[in-house]
Amino acid sequence: MDFSETNHHRLSRPIRCIVKLGGAAITCKNEIEKTNEEGLEIVASQLREAMVSGSSLPKGVGMDWSKRAECSEISLNVDDFGDQELMELSNFIVVHGAGSFGHFQASKSGVHKGGLERPLVKAGFVATRISVTKLNLEIVRALARESLPAIGMSPFSCGWSTCQRNFGSANLSTVTKALDSGFVPVLHGDAVLDEAQGCTILSGDVIIRYLAEHLKPDYVVFLTDVLGVYDRPPTEPGAVLLREIAVNEDGSWSVLKPRLKDSSRQVEITVAAHDTTGGMMTKISEAAMIAKLGIDVYIVKATTNHSVRALRGELRGDVIPDDWLGTLVRFSR
Amino acid sequence: MDFSETNHHRLSRPIRCIVKLGGAAITCKNEIEKTNEEGLEIVASQLREAMVSGSSLPKGVGMDWSKRAECSEISLNVDDFGDQELMELSNFIVVHGAGSFGHFQASKSGVHKGGLERPLVKAGFVATRISVTKLNLEIVRALARESLPAIGMSPFSCGWSTCQRNFGSANLSTVTKALDSGFVPVLHGDAVLDEAQGCTILSGDVIIRYLAEHLKPDYVVFLTDVLGVYDRPPTEPGAVLLREIAVNEDGSWSVLKPRLKDSSRQVEITVAAHDTTGGMMTKISEAAMIAKLGIDVYIVKATTNHSVRALRGELRGDVIPDDWLGTLVRFSR
Repeated sequence: MDFSETNHHRLSRPIRCIVKLGGAAITCKNEIEKTNEEGLEIVASQLREAMVSGSSLPKGVGMDWSKRAECSEISLNVDDFGDQELMELSNFIVVHGAGSFGHFQASKSGVHKGGLERPLVKAGFVATRISVTKLNLEIVRALARESLPAIGMSPFSCGWSTCQRNFGSANLSTVTKALDSGFVPVLHGDAVLDEAQGCTILSGDVIIRYLAEHLKPDYVVFLTDVLGVYDRPPTEPGAVLLREIAVNEDGSWSVLKPRLKDSSRQVEITVAAHDTTGGMMTKISEAAMIAKLGIDVYIVKATTNHSVRALRGELRGDVIPDDWLGTLVRFSR
Repeated sequence: MDFSETNHHRLSRPIRCIVKLGGAAITCKNEIEKTNEEGLEIVASQLREAMVSGSSLPKGVGMDWSKRAECSEISLNVDDFGDQELMELSNFIVVHGAGSFGHFQASKSGVHKGGLERPLVKAGFVATRISVTKLNLEIVRALARESLPAIGMSPFSCGWSTCQRNFGSANLSTVTKALDSGFVPVLHGDAVLDEAQGCTILSGDVIIRYLAEHLKPDYVVFLTDVLGVYDRPPTEPGAVLLREIAVNEDGSWSVLKPRLKDSSRQVEITVAAHDTTGGMMTKISEAAMIAKLGIDVYIVKATTNHSVRALRGELRGDVIPDDWLGTLVRFSR
């Protein structure tokens, strides 16, 4: 199928920001399938603050009219909507990771390695999708309670698939149509079909890179559970927060801030990030690939004042303020 | 976009049956957002029985590895899969209604009438989708617990939309790919975008008609909460179950069974079904449109012996057995 036309679907308004809600920021790491309710509530409220145009935040009316576990009744007053004007929201896309959802099911069954003809993999595929769509529903509801018109969209249902685990092409028209109708698409890492190996896991980070490439947002924000990217695991003594990373044309990157006294220290960081800190290197690589498109990437701790500043686009100038803590990954022209 | 190619996607195996799980059969009518757990469990087990080829039903291993409200732990023994062979399942598609999910949210906001620029409609759209995807997840999980590889697919995410509330075309490739990979697609009535009026509700019945037309299943089964279609509301004294309805080339229909003594009685039924019984006429009309394609439609009470016989395709002969209670709607050639 030729997706070229739909991938160049013109949005009536440009996309301001693609936000990654990191699994670690919105779920409880050590308990299977538990959302971080409090964190999620703050994230949703910060997103709303960032998306509403103008300086004053109008009163919003909740859009989650479903029963919640803790209460048996739905409270809804239709009259609340009588004097409401539709909030003018800028275009955001939310993509979330899995955290303590999906990971257990995927790793037990090896869904990422393919092999749908094996009963364990087939069951794991089904189980993974159940778990991640359960989380997706929770996140959509949290955003809806903050008056954000969130629409859950599963990559599998969108018809996105991979080939040899590479995400070649995806029809983005459902996403762009939702945006043009004033909704906030909420996507997620998902189990998907793979032409070569039957199935695999399409991660939230890969989805973001694809969306960034084709929809060209002004900036991208990764919300995580630490202040940003460090030169070693942040729990280790002496760990240094990398404030600004410059990405070169060839995809290599170097630390611009903090200024390091000798260049051997620079190498040390690169090696450390490569070899011992695992996920950190992946995170920088993904961010670097987006930055290479000329799109600034902010990696920042969720629910902080630093995250709200990044989400609102307050750091778009040449120099990032000293009192902002986080990691900016930027193309060095 | 031209869907003609994808709509003629050739399935590697034909579709045996499209099943409608009526909202009334799987949810509790009088309580908002409550599934009929017991009924749903029986429906899932009957579906499994109907889909498994061969006479003996192999041991299945559950595919819902997510936490449930009543228990905090996940029980999974990966070794259970060691000696499993993949069940040979015939191709089924499940489409469910909303019942006590979604209806409240949709009717309070008037989503079906469109007008996304109104805050109430926009909120209702979001709230309706939350509610119906919540039900979809419950149904997928119930099927997965019965070892059925169920995959929830929301019409909105599939990119299906309407124009002037008519469901013109939909890309079915995601559905057919899921089938070809051995999954059971689980679709549902949903709030969708409408080109003319902004948004509307795409009902499960309309989805089934479209799927039947394009994917040509051997037969279609509507599971409801009464034995079948009656000549008047089944709670009224003297209500007669219509056993067989013949549909003519022009879309008109007549009752073949029970044989009615005089033709005025026939007219009476038609008028009654038209005018006073509301939903019944809609049900016959939808069934008649499918029957006109040459596809037999069985309308039958869920969780009964009658439903399992219909699902298994035991009634495919010319004459339906006297001990089967339900309504067969068939094209009269």
